[in-house]
Amino acid sequence: MSFTLDHICSVIGAECPRKVKDVEINGVSSIQDAHPDDICFISNPKYIKHLESTNARAVIVAKGTPVPNTVIPLEVDNPYFAFVEILALFNTRSAINIASGIHSRAFINPDTVLGKDVSIGPFAVIGAGVKIGDDTVIGPCTVILSGSSIGKDCTLYPNVTIMDGCEIGDRVILHAGVIIGSDGFGFAPHEGHYTKIPQIGCVRIEDDVEIGAGTCIDRAAFGETVIEKGTKLDNLIQIAHNVRIGSDTVIAAQVGISGSTSIGSGVRMGGQAGLAGHLTVGNGASVGAQAGVTKDVTPNETVSGYPAKNHMKAMRLEAALRHLPELMKKVKNQERTIEELERIIKERS
Amino acid sequence: MSFTLDHICSVIGAECPRKVKDVEINGVSSIQDAHPDDICFISNPKYIKHLESTNARAVIVAKGTPVPNTVIPLEVDNPYFAFVEILALFNTRSAINIASGIHSRAFINPDTVLGKDVSIGPFAVIGAGVKIGDDTVIGPCTVILSGSSIGKDCTLYPNVTIMDGCEIGDRVILHAGVIIGSDGFGFAPHEGHYTKIPQIGCVRIEDDVEIGAGTCIDRAAFGETVIEKGTKLDNLIQIAHNVRIGSDTVIAAQVGISGSTSIGSGVRMGGQAGLAGHLTVGNGASVGAQAGVTKDVTPNETVSGYPAKNHMKAMRLEAALRHLPELMKKVKNQERTIEELERIIKERS
Amino acid sequence: MSFTLDHICSVIGAECPRKVKDVEINGVSSIQDAHPDDICFISNPKYIKHLESTNARAVIVAKGTPVPNTVIPLEVDNPYFAFVEILALFNTRSAINIASGIHSRAFINPDTVLGKDVSIGPFAVIGAGVKIGDDTVIGPCTVILSGSSIGKDCTLYPNVTIMDGCEIGDRVILHAGVIIGSDGFGFAPHEGHYTKIPQIGCVRIEDDVEIGAGTCIDRAAFGETVIEKGTKLDNLIQIAHNVRIGSDTVIAAQVGISGSTSIGSGVRMGGQAGLAGHLTVGNGASVGAQAGVTKDVTPNETVSGYPAKNHMKAMRLEAALRHLPELMKKVKNQERTIEELERIIKERS
Repeated sequence: MSFTLDHICSVIGAECPRKVKDVEINGVSSIQDAHPDDICFISNPKYIKHLESTNARAVIVAKGTPVPNTVIPLEVDNPYFAFVEILALFNTRSAINIASGIHSRAFINPDTVLGKDVSIGPFAVIGAGVKIGDDTVIGPCTVILSGSSIGKDCTLYPNVTIMDGCEIGDRVILHAGVIIGSDGFGFAPHEGHYTKIPQIGCVRIEDDVEIGAGTCIDRAAFGETVIEKGTKLDNLIQIAHNVRIGSDTVIAAQVGISGSTSIGSGVRMGGQAGLAGHLTVGNGASVGAQAGVTKDVTPNETVSGYPAKNHMKAMRLEAALRHLPELMKKVKNQERTIEELERIIKERS
Repeated sequence: MSFTLDHICSVIGAECPRKVKDVEINGVSSIQDAHPDDICFISNPKYIKHLESTNARAVIVAKGTPVPNTVIPLEVDNPYFAFVEILALFNTRSAINIASGIHSRAFINPDTVLGKDVSIGPFAVIGAGVKIGDDTVIGPCTVILSGSSIGKDCTLYPNVTIMDGCEIGDRVILHAGVIIGSDGFGFAPHEGHYTKIPQIGCVRIEDDVEIGAGTCIDRAAFGETVIEKGTKLDNLIQIAHNVRIGSDTVIAAQVGISGSTSIGSGVRMGGQAGLAGHLTVGNGASVGAQAGVTKDVTPNETVSGYPAKNHMKAMRLEAALRHLPELMKKVKNQERTIEELERIIKERS
Repeated sequence: MSFTLDHICSVIGAECPRKVKDVEINGVSSIQDAHPDDICFISNPKYIKHLESTNARAVIVAKGTPVPNTVIPLEVDNPYFAFVEILALFNTRSAINIASGIHSRAFINPDTVLGKDVSIGPFAVIGAGVKIGDDTVIGPCTVILSGSSIGKDCTLYPNVTIMDGCEIGDRVILHAGVIIGSDGFGFAPHEGHYTKIPQIGCVRIEDDVEIGAGTCIDRAAFGETVIEKGTKLDNLIQIAHNVRIGSDTVIAAQVGISGSTSIGSGVRMGGQAGLAGHLTVGNGASVGAQAGVTKDVTPNETVSGYPAKNHMKAMRLEAALRHLPELMKKVKNQERTIEELERIIKERS
């Protein structure tokens, strides 16, 4: 696949130098790994140094960036966003790779409501009473149990499990191995053993949510576990029962959120962070990678470390800790000095 | 679905005021989110404040709790346990959602022994020599490889994998995506590369164990990896080869237990804790969330932090650390004072 | 299954005492759990004490180890490696357990290229344009999407997902639930929401790699995510887009590696470690369990803790921290002493 620079410039809204408008671009790349007919971009100034040595034919840069004459500069206001548009242009991946039409080897309960142009792959299972919206694609070996509903324009990759009675909005993307609606972890101690607490609630995923491979979202004990509109979850995340996550929040891989915790909108969490149960994380807050959150987080606050603290405070403590060994030496020296002073004073008395 | 208060009271052993015995209850809820015909409960005193504003028709409370006359009180000794009974009453979820009878599109090796009333969903695979006990339900796309056995009254949700030669007891629940009997992580360094150590052991899961979505339990290198009776594991947990976990232990999500570590009975572990290999954790011990356990834990001890320490000690160190910056200032001030004292003494000598 | 000691000795290169060469050995075991006809081994000297009480018939030991005459000693240079050979001897597990031949209930797109003696289990899905090398075994319910290629002598266990356009080398082992080629976590903030960045790259897994159950490897945004030759990954690991992992590296369970980070060859990582994005970890480095790596790691360096530091430095800080409460007391005492000295000096002035 190739595009002319002229076409590329029209996509990203850059001006194309006339002499090079017929130059063909074959691929996209990072500035370090570029082949001679690739296009790349610079958004972070620390990569500008690679402009001298890159093999790339063209580079998308912020207006006014100095570019050596071995590379064709394409100037835009936002190079990162322009590059995203170029990735979309070169994207040959397609939902057809997952499923195209309703495969004869899928098992679809007769009591289902399928929208127009739904695709369902081989060995997918659609349970009784399930509703699937128009243009949604269900991958091979994906299982949707009875009473769940999936909106329009969704993509469910292979080996996904949607348990019974869950609700998925429109344009939701569930990557391979996602599990929605598994039982929450609820047991009541009773005579030395644990009695299972029935988990009779459900999971509701709103529109435009994307959920990464292998992530698990437990159903509520009663009521709902909710992921609001536009939120993006990475891989291997654990969302416990009755958690609520606000809109446009991003959560990195392997985070764990305990039961009944409520996360605001526009929140960002680093990988492997863990949150205790029954907490509230305010809108716009940030939680650092590997943080262990044991208390509420106020809106727009940044917390990090274990137990999680305000990030500035955590940084000061970390800096102080690094100086602890020399502090110990200093106190030891002071001890000697004080003893010496005491001795002198005693002698003179 | 609805039940009269009279019926609900008979289930939980509460006395029903005569005037309200025909009142219909339609659902269960938390005290904050209740609809007008819901029932809810108060176990934790901090929620008592919501009694004034709740929409709930009835509330399960401990005997003697003052309740405003806008809500019908149902008094019991243990409100939490009574509520679990109410959840069971309102539970409409059923194993039929997973599989009902043996589906024509399951693949069942002829050389298997199936008990009475076994259900197997579409695209499940039952390998040669597998035994499955009475009334067990196997979900769609679940794979049980040759020589494994599953007890009576078990539920295996969709997309579960049981590798060859593993043994599962009675009344075991395996949530979606669970993997039992994958190879342990064993490699011998040999001439600059790693040689795979054959993992020829198996996994044995005893009766009444429940294992959460996406959790992986590796088979032993030789001998067995064992999960004893009544133990409950949450989602996305890693259990390495030759681990043994005692009875009635509860382990929260994303915990990782390294090879050959032995966990006692009645142990509790918080989420994302990690345990090194070849350790012993005594009966009744507690391991805090995100703890990094590098040494044995004695029976009934509580440990937390990284590296994990006795919890009281860890709390003291954490408190001390918070005061480190002011300690540093104090030592700096002392330094000045000592220098001043030295100067004075020198002058006077 | 049983083998004579004579045969066992010939396999491991030990001398067999003539009197016992016909003794039959029925199994392998640890020295503590051995049955009377088992063979076991001692590599770690701390287990020598169990020689007096073991039930094992024979034990593999380093040359010159004193062994009581209740056990038959088999002396070798490297008891651990000899034991691995014995495990292989007693290994009755076979790829036939997973799949044998091409199952009639697999779905194989007509446009595929299958090598000789490929086995594919029931309900596996092989997409258009997929190539599979000789003697490779594909488990039940495993899905390989269009355009991916798998080498020779590979084993893909059940419920694995290989997304479109990925490349897997020879002799690769992918355990149950592995997901290769899911989308990287890339979103551009745009007018208060997140716009998905197309992930148009792929994943390349080189020869002799083994990947543990439930591990996820995301495809590159553009270019490749790469796992080089001979590297071994444990269970439930997260590898983000554009990560590159060198050859003969071992990574324990639940590690998370963020986008574009580059790991060298011969690296070792403990469980639950987390690495930030765009880092470089040098050849031969070691990363401790649960470490939070936020900076580059130099070749052969060992780091641990959060944020990760040189391990020796982290140990010193940890030791210092343990003494912090007594340091605080000491400073408090000094304070009193200094005040007393000041008072005395003032009196005398």
